[in-house]
Amino acid sequence: MGTILLKQATLKGEQKDILIRDNRIEVISDSISLSAKREIDCTGKTIIPGLINMHTHSAMSLMRGISEDVPLREWLNNIWSIETHLQEEHIYWGAKLAVLEMIKTGTTTFLDMYWMLPQVAQAVEEMGIRAVLTYVFLDHFDVEKSEVQKAECKCLYDSSKEWNKRCKFGVSIHADYTVSKNTMVWAADFAKENGLILHTHISETHQEVLSDKEKYGMSPVAYYDSLGILDSNVIAAHALWLDDEDIDIFAKRGVTAVHNVNSNLKLGSGYRFRYGDLKAAGVNICLGTDGAGSSNNLDMRESMKTMSLLQKGWTGDTTTLPLNELMDVATLNGARALGIDTGRIEEGALADILLVDTRSEAFIPNINFESNFIFSANSSCIDTVICDGKIVMEGRKVPGEEQILQKADEMAWKLIKSQ
Amino acid sequence: MGTILLKQATLKGEQKDILIRDNRIEVISDSISLSAKREIDCTGKTIIPGLINMHTHSAMSLMRGISEDVPLREWLNNIWSIETHLQEEHIYWGAKLAVLEMIKTGTTTFLDMYWMLPQVAQAVEEMGIRAVLTYVFLDHFDVEKSEVQKAECKCLYDSSKEWNKRCKFGVSIHADYTVSKNTMVWAADFAKENGLILHTHISETHQEVLSDKEKYGMSPVAYYDSLGILDSNVIAAHALWLDDEDIDIFAKRGVTAVHNVNSNLKLGSGYRFRYGDLKAAGVNICLGTDGAGSSNNLDMRESMKTMSLLQKGWTGDTTTLPLNELMDVATLNGARALGIDTGRIEEGALADILLVDTRSEAFIPNINFESNFIFSANSSCIDTVICDGKIVMEGRKVPGEEQILQKADEMAWKLIKSQ
Repeated sequence: MGTILLKQATLKGEQKDILIRDNRIEVISDSISLSAKREIDCTGKTIIPGLINMHTHSAMSLMRGISEDVPLREWLNNIWSIETHLQEEHIYWGAKLAVLEMIKTGTTTFLDMYWMLPQVAQAVEEMGIRAVLTYVFLDHFDVEKSEVQKAECKCLYDSSKEWNKRCKFGVSIHADYTVSKNTMVWAADFAKENGLILHTHISETHQEVLSDKEKYGMSPVAYYDSLGILDSNVIAAHALWLDDEDIDIFAKRGVTAVHNVNSNLKLGSGYRFRYGDLKAAGVNICLGTDGAGSSNNLDMRESMKTMSLLQKGWTGDTTTLPLNELMDVATLNGARALGIDTGRIEEGALADILLVDTRSEAFIPNINFESNFIFSANSSCIDTVICDGKIVMEGRKVPGEEQILQKADEMAWKLIKSQ
Repeated sequence: MGTILLKQATLKGEQKDILIRDNRIEVISDSISLSAKREIDCTGKTIIPGLINMHTHSAMSLMRGISEDVPLREWLNNIWSIETHLQEEHIYWGAKLAVLEMIKTGTTTFLDMYWMLPQVAQAVEEMGIRAVLTYVFLDHFDVEKSEVQKAECKCLYDSSKEWNKRCKFGVSIHADYTVSKNTMVWAADFAKENGLILHTHISETHQEVLSDKEKYGMSPVAYYDSLGILDSNVIAAHALWLDDEDIDIFAKRGVTAVHNVNSNLKLGSGYRFRYGDLKAAGVNICLGTDGAGSSNNLDMRESMKTMSLLQKGWTGDTTTLPLNELMDVATLNGARALGIDTGRIEEGALADILLVDTRSEAFIPNINFESNFIFSANSSCIDTVICDGKIVMEGRKVPGEEQILQKADEMAWKLIKSQ
């Protein structure tokens, strides 16, 4: 650790010097003359918080582009058939590839739902960013499987106490159509007792809602609520097909909703994410990329653009989701949901920082930085990424990236051929 | 001119050598041993045709980000109030900035609708790409204005014969709610008599359609058709609110429809572009970015992604607009509409070529190049751009770009302050 001094950076339109000590932002001032272990000239660069990807399946980056332009059922079958062959080396290198992508596109924290957590944790620890890695319950209504998974979850939770503090353990219920009631309740109780995040897929497709209404006489959200699962530790991915009552339940229980715009569109799941109504009800709203198996990349900045375009497009209201709210959706709201003191550039906050290079055609003229960053630029404008007070990318170079590309490519083809 | 030899390039999944002589692709072969004036090692690079942006207002790049998150009416007023102050130097540097953006994101041909064509032509000629620059009729139903514009159009058409052959002259009718019937017919006749492209905004908003139905008892498309305007030289931008009869008319007359997905979403105009129905009717379908005043950038690759996501999203059909069709929408279909022998990498075609660098995380694994290019990468993967047999960008460097950024920035602020 030590100190990093960011000289002459642009922060909310003003020139500032920023001193990072150990893993936190210590001082933000017009001019800091203190000598630091490392000084970075930030001329032409604007500083924003690292982005927070609130829903992904990291190692699925190995399955990028594996199944295109096919009906949803065929896509699922293709993915599931490959997933049965996953081994630890695939997961480790798949996660390394995913974290590399995330760093290159400005994500410093992500919420993951996938298999073999120790391998993902190792990848995240080595790469230097933050993650909440959730153990996924997926018992297909099989009691034996459920018991095995409960035991495995407890065991992994215990061993997670050895993880680097940038990695946190959490619990996932895959979905109510793949997990038994008993397991859902156990997982929720386990999360609550241990102060853990509870992550789940909910109301992703219309079919899922119709099916729950037929089976349980209520929506997926109402069903979860009837089991006493929903609480302020719950992070609900997709939440695309919500009715008014569902939104009320989210608000009452303090559930966080995560929009996955690219994935929802690409898989034909729908487009009417009710941002305006969720916001009005006081629900915390975040953004995720989903896994690269469905949405092809983990580029949060790009997803911010699609989210904004689609909100304005489907509602016909150009004033919805203004730029300042959109920045919060991709940063601060995620930090709040995960209980991590990041997502803001302020004295005392964790030092998770992006240096955005504005010296390109995308930022001419630079009348509105947020608009240029989200709507005009692509993510190659992200020059430097600092996480937990350490530089993880500088001048768009990430240490070890060539090896990651080579090994991940090797693993992807090995996985495909193992079918 | 002379010869360029592209060695070991990947073309449709196969390793090929490609010989360019003067401005055309002469030979595509497994191995070419001929010595060329310039030889480029294309290891790790995939070759695709230059993209064709079929609707933009180039110099509006100076107005990027000038009016965000406001109602459409306020946006229009902001833009129009600035446009009254436009002078030749703004147009020239605005167009230079726009062409720089287009080159950096892989566009080698664009269809433009804006003011002061000689300045735009100069910018395009200097930068080395292709354009069809249209003279815009916009008389606000004023007979005197109409006569002035007709004279100006004829005069500019005559002088356009001196332009570099990469620039072609065309005619635009701004829209039927801003141009008188007499002028519309005159413009269409002038275009037809001289073998020119006729470009127009049509059925962009629901309001526009409702208004025409009230005024003329028919849709905008039916109204244009009733005036005898629609023909195979007509390129209709937006075409977002079409009914079945409109689609039949487009098909019968051979009209090309240009989707401007980002602009339509951002301005809240709508999202149900009827790609499937237009395609089934045999209509030629292209893609445009619109001007950066509304959609913030001129990145065709990014627009390809949004178009595909939105088509799959709003129809719920994941098989619609498959990758090969999407590539044609952004290349060959535009070439056909403009009557330029480009948009394809084949012996004899004009040498408008992109070298896409696949040695990055976005292309790991590279199971499906088109999917990675459109859905996973951002446009910084475009390493080299060749247009008309000349290299206009190599290793992402465009000659003179620093000066363009500096001058365009200066012009943008001068324009803003002139209000």
